[in-house]
Amino acid sequence: IVLAPVSLAAEDPLPSWRDGPGKAAIVEFVARVTRQDSAGYVEPHERIATFDNDGTLWSEQPLYFQAYYALDRIRDMAADHPEWKEREPYRSALAGDVKGLAAQGKGPVVEMLVAAHANVTTEAFTRSVAHWLATARHPRTGRLFTEMVYQPMLELLEYLRANDFKVFIVSGGGIDFIRVFSHERYGVPPEQVVGTTGGARFELRDGIPVVVKTGDISLIDDKAGKPVGIWRHIGRRPIFAAGNSDGDLQMLQYTTVARNEDDTTPRLGLIVHHTDGEREFEYDRESAVGRLDRALDMAPEQGWLVVDMKRDWRRVFPVAGS
Amino acid sequence: IVLAPVSLAAEDPLPSWRDGPGKAAIVEFVARVTRQDSAGYVEPHERIATFDNDGTLWSEQPLYFQAYYALDRIRDMAADHPEWKEREPYRSALAGDVKGLAAQGKGPVVEMLVAAHANVTTEAFTRSVAHWLATARHPRTGRLFTEMVYQPMLELLEYLRANDFKVFIVSGGGIDFIRVFSHERYGVPPEQVVGTTGGARFELRDGIPVVVKTGDISLIDDKAGKPVGIWRHIGRRPIFAAGNSDGDLQMLQYTTVARNEDDTTPRLGLIVHHTDGEREFEYDRESAVGRLDRALDMAPEQGWLVVDMKRDWRRVFPVAGS
Ligand SMILES: [Ca+2]
Ligand SMILES: [Ca+2]
Repeated sequence: IVLAPVSLAAEDPLPSWRDGPGKAAIVEFVARVTRQDSAGYVEPHERIATFDNDGTLWSEQPLYFQAYYALDRIRDMAADHPEWKEREPYRSALAGDVKGLAAQGKGPVVEMLVAAHANVTTEAFTRSVAHWLATARHPRTGRLFTEMVYQPMLELLEYLRANDFKVFIVSGGGIDFIRVFSHERYGVPPEQVVGTTGGARFELRDGIPVVVKTGDISLIDDKAGKPVGIWRHIGRRPIFAAGNSDGDLQMLQYTTVARNEDDTTPRLGLIVHHTDGEREFEYDRESAVGRLDRALDMAPEQGWLVVDMKRDWRRVFPVAGS
Repeated sequence: IVLAPVSLAAEDPLPSWRDGPGKAAIVEFVARVTRQDSAGYVEPHERIATFDNDGTLWSEQPLYFQAYYALDRIRDMAADHPEWKEREPYRSALAGDVKGLAAQGKGPVVEMLVAAHANVTTEAFTRSVAHWLATARHPRTGRLFTEMVYQPMLELLEYLRANDFKVFIVSGGGIDFIRVFSHERYGVPPEQVVGTTGGARFELRDGIPVVVKTGDISLIDDKAGKPVGIWRHIGRRPIFAAGNSDGDLQMLQYTTVARNEDDTTPRLGLIVHHTDGEREFEYDRESAVGRLDRALDMAPEQGWLVVDMKRDWRRVFPVAGS
């Protein structure tokens, strides 16, 4: 038996990324901020990375996955709410009108979901989402929704963490929804998830202290709300941010635009461009869900790295069942 | 030269705590949740500990330290606000009426501070607080305010972290204020600080993306607001919580009261009781600042550990200048 020395450095930390300028830019950025002799060296506790979720870490077509959860909940509750038949986005939800629902945007869908859970304890909500994630399946692929995460992005999360980055999710989706699966699926603990946030209040129910959702919205963590969510939860600027739509534009600006001449810290903004209609979905400027238009135009001038899913990713989803 | 083996286990991790039931209860709790063969073993990522700040990690008499900062700011700005002379808490602030200001409570003082910083960038606010903390001194001790942290509590924070706890601050004070010194002083990074939170908005100022404080309040992280802040920022229940006043009552309940018969995770609630008028300040039921009344009455039945500063702490403050 020959015991060959294991060279971790020689192992490719991003095996699902094809060699090319995209992968090279990521590796080069990480080297710059982690090498102690580098002019761009960043202390480990300042290595903050933020990732959008829908369309960046998992799919979002033909509808945000959380909207499918909302659809199921709204249908469950519809008998007690005859007024919903007349009101959007409830009307589209009850009609199963995916196109109509997509046209409403993420905000109204999350608001509908938050309102539907008024007076529900956070624990009951978590159980409900966990049950749904374990059973509901995507209408096109037949996979569990949590099996539609992007393998190359899972590797990127792990690669950054291995280089002492602290990784956060910063999503327009609901914070309480994402937290149910973020640790198991992404390795991101609940306290590192930022998202659209409903109000909550504390009460004693039969002597048991609980936090109850109140049905209003405290933060819409999308577009200009993302830097606000980052400030609220993290309290400092990331040095790396990844997104896939115009909803990430302000987060990318906040992360990468230098404050002044002394602000020379290396920073990287990354945009996942959905170019692969065969392995995933192909969409950008015209899509109601995950529209990527202005941010795509701005990318070259801002130096944001545009990842072409079709060209840059060896595979999209993990091996089924993993 | 004799190289004696260094036994880390034999070193006392809490040297400023006198031996007694209080210290023993802490050490016993940590042993229960960390020993893999213990029935109370808790996975490292579930070892969440939350600490109140004012009166728990540093002093708060004769006035919350942040109120001294507010006083200085309000005085700076008073010339432009003649209406403040007639309105509390501004009136007391401008008159230097510490008693009158204390009687207003923490909420109005933080609100005053938040309002005073409307349209200020988070970065300018941080610089202002950092400058103040480096120069302002406590009216009685003459120490920098950050020198009035409690040495035994610094050791407790470090002891928990050494046992893979993730330590958070959950304070009625301003989140942006505490974050300026929490990392350096407590080893708690900004993203692990929860506190009373002002609104914020994103904007481009001369092309530079900034987050600007808006002058309204998004969360009062005190009393029933503490479990809400914990849920919002951490997303799960702590297994350890420490406070010093009735403002921590709900956090202590939320942390320690079992959900149901299956909820057998060991949990510890700790109350710092200010019994030492010689080395620090002596107050509890009658104090306008840091009133400890109901929580003190409930402690025996709830099994909360009441730490008697005079009896249990060998020293209160760190060696000056450290
Ligand atoms: Ca997205
Ligand atoms: Ca306190």
